Amino acid sequence: MPNVNIGIDMMGGDYAPCEAVKGLALYLNNNSNQSSVLCIGNEAELKPLLESCDLVTDERVSIVHAEEVIGYNEHPTKALKEKPKSSIAIGFKLLASGQIDAFISAGNTGAMLVSAMYSIKAVEGVLRPTIPTLVPKLNGGTGLLLDVGLNADCKPEQLNQFALMGSEYAKHVLNIPNARVGLLNVGEEEGKGNILCQATYPLLKENTQINFCGNIEGRDLFKDNADVIVCDGFTGNVVLKMAESIYDIAAHRQMENDEFFHRFHYENYGGTPVLGITKPVVIGHGISNDKAFKNMIIQAEIMIKSNFCDKIKAVFSL
Amino acid sequence: MPNVNIGIDMMGGDYAPCEAVKGLALYLNNNSNQSSVLCIGNEAELKPLLESCDLVTDERVSIVHAEEVIGYNEHPTKALKEKPKSSIAIGFKLLASGQIDAFISAGNTGAMLVSAMYSIKAVEGVLRPTIPTLVPKLNGGTGLLLDVGLNADCKPEQLNQFALMGSEYAKHVLNIPNARVGLLNVGEEEGKGNILCQATYPLLKENTQINFCGNIEGRDLFKDNADVIVCDGFTGNVVLKMAESIYDIAAHRQMENDEFFHRFHYENYGGTPVLGITKPVVIGHGISNDKAFKNMIIQAEIMIKSNFCDKIKAVFSL
Repeated sequence: MPNVNIGIDMMGGDYAPCEAVKGLALYLNNNSNQSSVLCIGNEAELKPLLESCDLVTDERVSIVHAEEVIGYNEHPTKALKEKPKSSIAIGFKLLASGQIDAFISAGNTGAMLVSAMYSIKAVEGVLRPTIPTLVPKLNGGTGLLLDVGLNADCKPEQLNQFALMGSEYAKHVLNIPNARVGLLNVGEEEGKGNILCQATYPLLKENTQINFCGNIEGRDLFKDNADVIVCDGFTGNVVLKMAESIYDIAAHRQMENDEFFHRFHYENYGGTPVLGITKPVVIGHGISNDKAFKNMIIQAEIMIKSNFCDKIKAVFSL
Repeated sequence: MPNVNIGIDMMGGDYAPCEAVKGLALYLNNNSNQSSVLCIGNEAELKPLLESCDLVTDERVSIVHAEEVIGYNEHPTKALKEKPKSSIAIGFKLLASGQIDAFISAGNTGAMLVSAMYSIKAVEGVLRPTIPTLVPKLNGGTGLLLDVGLNADCKPEQLNQFALMGSEYAKHVLNIPNARVGLLNVGEEEGKGNILCQATYPLLKENTQINFCGNIEGRDLFKDNADVIVCDGFTGNVVLKMAESIYDIAAHRQMENDEFFHRFHYENYGGTPVLGITKPVVIGHGISNDKAFKNMIIQAEIMIKSNFCDKIKAVFSL
């Protein structure tokens, strides 16, 4: 297996570029990590930071200068048009041309998604790409919930595709073969739910590419009833943010080190992969710290080495 | 203020009639509680239980015999048709005829809702009745979230009505005047959200009968940003059940007595009122215990004494 090239937007996130550099150092300190990392950002800012971490002479590290940055509050499409030399725009150019095998950013989420759609594009047959979140289970395992915000309104066929993409991610990246797929719903029985769920259930049931296990209620989200849970992006986003607030609440009560609540901390998961596009892209939390950056690099590495995007192309070409 | 008559379905709930009797005793042990309570259920079963609690001679207590019970898993419409002598059917007859001023049951939720719609009916102008849940806030206060499951698919005008009904409930029952109304959404700014939220936002903004304060995200559910939060019944039900599971998770970690998590326990809230119908109806949790029954009686009493249903009629006649 040849070594891979991972591009990181060093300028994205509230604590960039400092935490991005520290995260890179955490990753490289483990000598078995052999991927090459292209640091995309302002060279003058990055060089002293990389030097302070002894990374300038590391053969695995190189800098790609980007003189502009897209801010957190900028309008995605407008910003991408006006800032072709921004770290995000350059990152996607490198990804599209094959100079990097994956791109990571904790920057403007909208700009990341718009770029992903227009530069590297959705896999043929995928109606809409989707973003999942990992869900910590009470038994110590990990589940996947999707969509968590990319598609506020969904059609049944989209949820059916989320189920397939989520199953592939579970299999190749999370190492969960034959993932049980659940439909987030308001009752256990078939026929329950809103119009979307009522129409989605039979599609999931008949889909031979997935292992459908029925409806999952809000109370069972953290149980081990399913590995992949699908829902529309509105519901998923409300659930995701509510789950994040559970960590804050636990932390406020000095319970953040509780083995279950601790697992709600975003840093442990790295970032959010965009599923259904032709190349690996990982979007980080705006408040990403060093540990989050390190985990995003590892996550991108697994996506590259498992040929995740090719697996998605394969299941959608059947 | 004349004393009021409250009807209780003594046969509803997993632990009926035992916990219903014990809850009644808890209520009556406080001598300032002066409402008359009609115990609807199997007289032969109820009498010895009431006797054991010294309630048979209590002037505030009477038994209304009901020889049938609608089971938890029975089909609501079918069961109501086949069991006119069930405690739920008799309860609604007494409520419709004015012999009781409020009806409480922890029995078959579907049968309660169907009866409410067909016997005492929706308030004129109300598109669809709704059920709310109380949300414990981190600052010790209490918020109201609705709809939590009666209306899986909603139209914008329904959410606008939920806002008004929730505000009235907050004002008259929870003692929160001029309640701040928030729209559960995936972002803070106007224009965010799914099609439903995008269409609902301007209605709420223009509604002079409510105090609209904008969008509320999943992470802010337990904060003090709003008193009443409206959403479709699908999202609300997922959130409600997820919140209930937080209590179970906390309890599993011996944290159920934590001052915040403890407030998630259903028993503290009594039951769920049905908003938008012409008379007070409270539906209890299937696992209602004595404390829950006591709190449901108090809740029904407040709804009666505040003329809550008349207030709803008044705001919908404007």
